[in-house]
Parts: sequence; structure tokens; C-alpha cells
Amino acid sequence: MTNVTIWNEYRHEKKDAAIAKVYPEGMHAPIANSLRAEGFHARVATLDEPEHGLTQDVLAQTDVLTWWGHKAHNEVKDDIVDRVQQRVLAGMGLIVLHSAHFSKIFKRLMGTSCDLKWRAAGERERIWVVEPGHPIAAGLGEYFEIPHEEMYGERFDIPAPETLVFVSWFQGGEVFRSGCCYRRGRGKIFYFRPGHETYPTYHHPEVQRVIANAARWAAPSAGPKPVFGNAKLLDKLAQEAQR
Amino acid sequence: MTNVTIWNEYRHEKKDAAIAKVYPEGMHAPIANSLRAEGFHARVATLDEPEHGLTQDVLAQTDVLTWWGHKAHNEVKDDIVDRVQQRVLAGMGLIVLHSAHFSKIFKRLMGTSCDLKWRAAGERERIWVVEPGHPIAAGLGEYFEIPHEEMYGERFDIPAPETLVFVSWFQGGEVFRSGCCYRRGRGKIFYFRPGHETYPTYHHPEVQRVIANAARWAAPSAGPKPVFGNAKLLDKLAQEAQR
Amino acid sequence: MTNVTIWNEYRHEKKDAAIAKVYPEGMHAPIANSLRAEGFHARVATLDEPEHGLTQDVLAQTDVLTWWGHKAHNEVKDDIVDRVQQRVLAGMGLIVLHSAHFSKIFKRLMGTSCDLKWRAAGERERIWVVEPGHPIAAGLGEYFEIPHEEMYGERFDIPAPETLVFVSWFQGGEVFRSGCCYRRGRGKIFYFRPGHETYPTYHHPEVQRVIANAARWAAPSAGPKPVFGNAKLLDKLAQEAQR
Amino acid sequence: MTNVTIWNEYRHEKKDAAIAKVYPEGMHAPIANSLRAEGFHARVATLDEPEHGLTQDVLAQTDVLTWWGHKAHNEVKDDIVDRVQQRVLAGMGLIVLHSAHFSKIFKRLMGTSCDLKWRAAGERERIWVVEPGHPIAAGLGEYFEIPHEEMYGERFDIPAPETLVFVSWFQGGEVFRSGCCYRRGRGKIFYFRPGHETYPTYHHPEVQRVIANAARWAAPSAGPKPVFGNAKLLDKLAQEAQR
Repeated sequence: MTNVTIWNEYRHEKKDAAIAKVYPEGMHAPIANSLRAEGFHARVATLDEPEHGLTQDVLAQTDVLTWWGHKAHNEVKDDIVDRVQQRVLAGMGLIVLHSAHFSKIFKRLMGTSCDLKWRAAGERERIWVVEPGHPIAAGLGEYFEIPHEEMYGERFDIPAPETLVFVSWFQGGEVFRSGCCYRRGRGKIFYFRPGHETYPTYHHPEVQRVIANAARWAAPSAGPKPVFGNAKLLDKLAQEAQR
Repeated sequence: MTNVTIWNEYRHEKKDAAIAKVYPEGMHAPIANSLRAEGFHARVATLDEPEHGLTQDVLAQTDVLTWWGHKAHNEVKDDIVDRVQQRVLAGMGLIVLHSAHFSKIFKRLMGTSCDLKWRAAGERERIWVVEPGHPIAAGLGEYFEIPHEEMYGERFDIPAPETLVFVSWFQGGEVFRSGCCYRRGRGKIFYFRPGHETYPTYHHPEVQRVIANAARWAAPSAGPKPVFGNAKLLDKLAQEAQR
Repeated sequence: MTNVTIWNEYRHEKKDAAIAKVYPEGMHAPIANSLRAEGFHARVATLDEPEHGLTQDVLAQTDVLTWWGHKAHNEVKDDIVDRVQQRVLAGMGLIVLHSAHFSKIFKRLMGTSCDLKWRAAGERERIWVVEPGHPIAAGLGEYFEIPHEEMYGERFDIPAPETLVFVSWFQGGEVFRSGCCYRRGRGKIFYFRPGHETYPTYHHPEVQRVIANAARWAAPSAGPKPVFGNAKLLDKLAQEAQR
Repeated sequence: MTNVTIWNEYRHEKKDAAIAKVYPEGMHAPIANSLRAEGFHARVATLDEPEHGLTQDVLAQTDVLTWWGHKAHNEVKDDIVDRVQQRVLAGMGLIVLHSAHFSKIFKRLMGTSCDLKWRAAGERERIWVVEPGHPIAAGLGEYFEIPHEEMYGERFDIPAPETLVFVSWFQGGEVFRSGCCYRRGRGKIFYFRPGHETYPTYHHPEVQRVIANAARWAAPSAGPKPVFGNAKLLDKLAQEAQR
């Protein structure tokens, strides 16, 4: 069974009544529940827990980590970011949600500013599948809509995704690369755009479907663990090379 | 000096008065003239010429070929398609324009159906630069608009572009990967979306700028010509390998 | 259960005693048997059967097709190649083995010559995993060796793989991109280098492991079936666009 | 004229007599001289200069920066690394040489460990061109050899290159992705493998050719400077969206 840890900043929901109404148990709740319904083992970790809930033990038992943050990116401690990065390079999957484009961990893994255009005007977002054969698109139609969302627009300052699965259309005139796959080390990373805290996006069935698909895709596989450093000459080749 | 051959089906302009008004000298004329103004040597070839104007000699002297076709894709002879494909694999650049997504040569080089959604409703198209550091985006703003164009929408059935430079937003709700770079053999290929025959798209300054940038990018470079087939063992390695 | 059809030219084994000794039941036998042992449903189809064993029915029931051919590429009928291409674009996986780099179906889907250097000198091949997090590398070490194989060397005239999983080192001084992933339409394609008919390569456990991993990776997923062609304006957007 | 700044750690050459004999004026000297001969304006900056020779002014005037470091990566100050990263994202090209795979700036831009296997045994390296149409391969043969070099072997823990231009074969049995192109922000990055300090690699004509080609490729182009942050609704679209 794949173990998913849902990491949530979990501040908006506690401080803002309107947001609490949308997500009374926190934004992580519908994500965790929908993953459980799909057969994942899901646990939750939040910023204000010790070590942000991401102890060595928790990470060692996590196959896929989802990450949502917004206002408090800077409160995430650098040593925890180091730890998460090491786990991703060692094979853990990472699903980066919406405003976590600006999280320390995503910027660390991308090497770029990860900046973008945004506008909070409750626009309609239409998310088009551009790679219908990709497992993250399983069970979707050719597009799905979110009636009201924050707009994110290009230029999105990321490395070109290794696979681009979704492109968003926004009512106000912008486009956005909304579903982006990467590999870093032995780990797989998926950035998924929707999820502004004031809208019920994580209750949306297609959004839940994408996160479950992405968790399946990002789960570690049993490939070799590279050995780095000084390498001896291999068997008979050593003799050939030394002639 | 880079030699560009502008290939045009050149039928609509001769048969349809409204289109002739937009392109009285053919759609190739503004393309050729704008390339000349940028310092290219430009010549024109059309479907109804012998060998479609693409003799071995013409192709041998062509660094970059642009291709526009629509209604008469099937009239392009297969042996000429073979010839163009060989030249691309040998290093010639190819710029595929608009409805030439369905040309024999593009489908041949892509290996897919190259199909898409379309709608001729005179919608506004906004073309966003998603890769601002790419030479094909030189001299552009973050986006440019074409006030009235045919819509092309995803899913565009192409191999994922090696570099995606532009994404189009359409008024009616669709998106499209509008500027797509590929390598095939030693040749470079750029697909560029706009250019429906009933609109003055090829008079548009940013469209002309993109075609000129693409011609510079797609021009051949002086890399090695691969030798294929049975390979002898290389010098001393032969002796090592035979021990 | 994933249905794999193992397609084999099946001529060498019937005409050459030395090869028949290596593969007494045909080269397809160890491939099919090792897939069955991994839980796949495997069937075999060969060149000399009616429709090369690839009827519409067979293909409709095939999730993943493996392809080995060498001397008789030209005997494969074009309409069967069309049929296989359509099935790949519709989602069937395709695993292209060794000398099938020159098969009609691979060249069709790649758009290039697919040519390469080769040498039949029984050299040692060492296949390095360059993407250890990829599912096709599951269960492997950092490299595996084939003691005697035909050499294939770069330049391999293919489009750059979307993911490069393996690179081969050859005793005689060449390198080769040996494990190459592509998407075409909704289908996934994996090219895997080893498998010259005179060596017992398909009895090799790591080679069998790779083919099984690739069959899992290439199996279709349930993404949307694109609708191509003339698209109506979508609901309310239609009204906005027509203003 | 393209301005290249050659950055060199410049410690080995001052402390080790054998290395000083190979590079009496520093490893930067043959690099700078060969670039000047190709028409570049080349200047040199080294670790022990104030601000490592990379003041805001110097960087602002640099189109392409080459970087060689080895023993003293940790002495490079983080604020200078920040500054170089910002310039790359703003469009400056970066050529990362040999042991600089472990430099702070390369690891920062890649997001991975950038670790690898190595062996200092004076092996022969044969560098194969796998992308002969790429401008960085201009003027080369199908491969070139360096008679004695340090070995670097896979797994090289980098993000998959956007374009892989070279693959190295080593006498002792390893392979390596030796020429790797990336985009980060508006900047282009090229990693080039050879160049161990004890060998006269930077006097090698093909190595000099590759660095000059890479400097041309990596030079900035005049694309749009993205505007990030809160975006107003664009003109008439604002009215449509607010209905």
C-alpha cells in the first residue's frame, strides 16, 4: 500500500472564517479522504507541528508527499527542506500544489524563481489534457472546469517540464502549464496548479482524481541505488586499461 | 547568407476573391518580402510548378524551407515528400505553418496523426511566450495578439515538442501549443500555428518576426555527417577486443 | 491482466541451425514464457501467418505489442503497418527490440531513418542505467552485462528520446542509447537494444526483467479519447465570443 | 561582440608544480585565448579576487560565464552564488566545466546532488556526438578522443538534459552524459565533462571548439522580460470576465 503524507501549512483555515467554512477540517482533509477512498494510506503533517510533522521517521515511511503552502513559506526550516530534498532524491514522490510553487522545497528542486502572474478574480479555469496517454490523465475528459479560481499566468519560471500533462485556459486571457512532471534523483515530482484557499477546489472530483493519479505515478519504483564516488576498475577491464 | 524557400500551395489565393484581396500576390509574398527585409535570400516554390518547385537542385540550395498547404495536401507527390524528408534529415530546416499540420511532410516527420480541433469563427488569439530565452522569441513582448483567427485547440496529436515556445489562448475557451521545436536527423523543425488564409495574418509584424527568428534558428549547422552501417573496430581497440 | 502479443519475424530460427540451437522454439518463446511468469497474458504472432498474425481482432485485444524483425522488414505489408500504427496512436504500447530499429513500424512512428553503426564481433556490452528512478529500471543493478553481443553504435538516427533509461558501453569503443521511451498519440513506445539472433540474449534474466518492466510501463491508461475536427463554441463562451 | 568571463578557482596551478607545468598561466589562459581567437571578448575572474572577481558590474557585462572549480567549491560565498544565479535566470549563459559539476552554482541550478562516479587512472576518453545537428557539435567529427583523462561515470545525478549532445566512452567500462544543455529562466546552461587539472585537456583543439560553440549557443537572446506578480485584467477581457 502506498503511503502518502499530506503536508499543509494549515494557517488560513484557522484564521479566516470564510476559508474555515470551505475547509472546516483543513484543506488537507478532503485530500486525505479522497486518497483513502482510492486505497492509499494517507496521513497528515502540518507546519506548526514539531519538525513540521516531517520527522526522519515520517519521511522514511512516506512514499509520496503532497505539499500545500502559501503565506508561511519562510517559516519552513531549512534543515527540514534539506531533509525533504534528500528523500525526493532517494526516490520519494512529491506533489506540489498551487501556491506551493513558491515553497522552498519546489524552488530548491527546480533551481529557478518559480514566479508567475496571478490574479484573484474568481475566474473560470478550464484545464485541458494535452497528453491523454499519461497515467495522470486517467479517468478524465478532454478538459475539466473549475468555475471560480485564482488565475495563474505565464511566464511560469520553471525548467521546461519533462512531460506537460495539462494546460489551463483562464477567462481573463491567460494560459498556464498546469500539470508538470519532473524527475530529480530517483524521485518523481508533479506540480498541479489549482487550489486557492478561498475556493472549494479540493472538493472537486476531477481535482481529487488528478491527485490520486499523480500519487500512483509518483510512487517509488525499485530501481538501483547509485553508488557515487571513487570507482575501482572493473574486473578484467582493469587489466586491459592498464596495459 | 541563409537561403529560404517559401513553399505555398497557392490555390486559395487564385480561386477565392476574398482571399485574393488579402493576399493579392499570394500568401508567400509577405513571407518572402519580410524575410528579405531581414537579410535572408528568399525564393518561392508552389504546388503547381513542375516537381512542386522542389527539384533536387532547389532543395540542395535551400537552408530552410517554409511550408503552407491546406486543401491539396494529397496532391503533393510522395516522391517529393521523400525528397524533402531526406533533406531535413540531412540538415535543412523546416518551418511548418498553420494548416500544414496536416501536410504529408509534417505527418511523415512526426509519426502521428497531427490532428486537432478547429473552428473558423474569427476569434481573438493571444499567443503567449512560455520560453522567453529561446531565440525564436527574440524581439517579442510577453504575448502578441491576432484579432481574428481560426481556432486550433488541444488535443494536438503531435509528439511532445522538444521545446515549447508559444501557447495560444483563444476567446472561445481553447488552448494550443502554438510554437513547437523538434530535431529530426540533423534538421530542425518549427511548427507555428497562425495563418488561416482568410485573415491577413502573414502581414502581421510579430508573425513575420517569429518566422524570421525561426529561419535563423533552423538554419543548418556544420556538425558531423554520421556514417551508418558496418563499422570496423577502431585501431588499438580492435586488438584489445579480440583478445 | 495485461495482454502482450509477441511478434517475431521467425525466419532465422527456422533456417539457420546455429540459431535454432539457441532458440529451438523461436526467439519469441523465452520472451513469452518470461512474461507469463511475470503475470502477463502472452500470445505470439509471426510474419508468415495470415495478416502476419496481427488481425484487427488480435490488435484490439493487445495492450502491448513487442516487435522483433531483421531480414524481412520489407515483407511486412503496409496495411498491417498502418493498422499497428493506428493501434499505437489509440493507446497500445509498443516494445521495439534490437534489429527492429529498422522495422517499418518503428521508422513510421519516429519519422527518421533509425540508422546506426553495427559490428558483429561478439563484443561485451555493458548496459548502464542512467535513470534509476524509472519503472523500467526496477529490479536492476547499476548496470548489467551481456558477454557477447552485436555492437550498435551512435549516431543512432532517432528523435531524442523523451526519457533515456539505458546507455550501452561496448568493448570496441562505441556507446549507444539503449533504452529509449517515447509517446506517440496515446501510446507508449520503448526501444530496447540487445537481442542479436545468434546470441542467447532473450534467455538473459536482466533482459527478460527489462521487457517485463517495459510491458508494465507501456500498458494503456484510461485517459480521454480526443475528439478531433470542427469544434462548436462551448456553452456560455459561445455567447461571449459572438458579441 | 559576445563577452565571456572565464571563472577559474585557480588554486591547483599555483600549488602543484606538475599542474603548473601543464597550465603555467592558469587553466583559464588557454580557454580565454582560444575564445579570443574565435572572436569573443574574454576576461578572467578567479576565486581569490575580491567578490571572486564577479562584481555586479562584471556580471552585468558578461554574456556567458564559464566555471571551473574543484577543491574550493565551499569557499565560494553564497551571496556571489545568489548573484550568479540571478544573472543566469535573467539571461546570461553558463558553461560548467568538468569538476564544477559539484560547484554550488551548478547544484543550485539543477536541484540535485550532481554526484557521479570517478577514477583518476589516465584512461582514454572517446566523446561521441549523439546530436550532430546541434550547434555545439559544429566542426567536430563523429567523435573525438582525449588520450588521458579522469573517468566520470553514470549514474550522473542531474535532471535529464533538455538536449544531450555528447556521450563519453571510457576505456575502463563506463559511459557518461558529457554534453548537457539546459534552460533556467532566460539563461542557457551547458555542462561539458572533460578537463581534469592534471591533463592538458584545455589545450585540446576539439575541447576548445566545443567551448566556443557553447559560448555562441549560450549567448543571451532578446526575448521578453517576464513581468511577475499581480496581473490586471487585460483591456476588454476585463469587462467580459466581470459579467
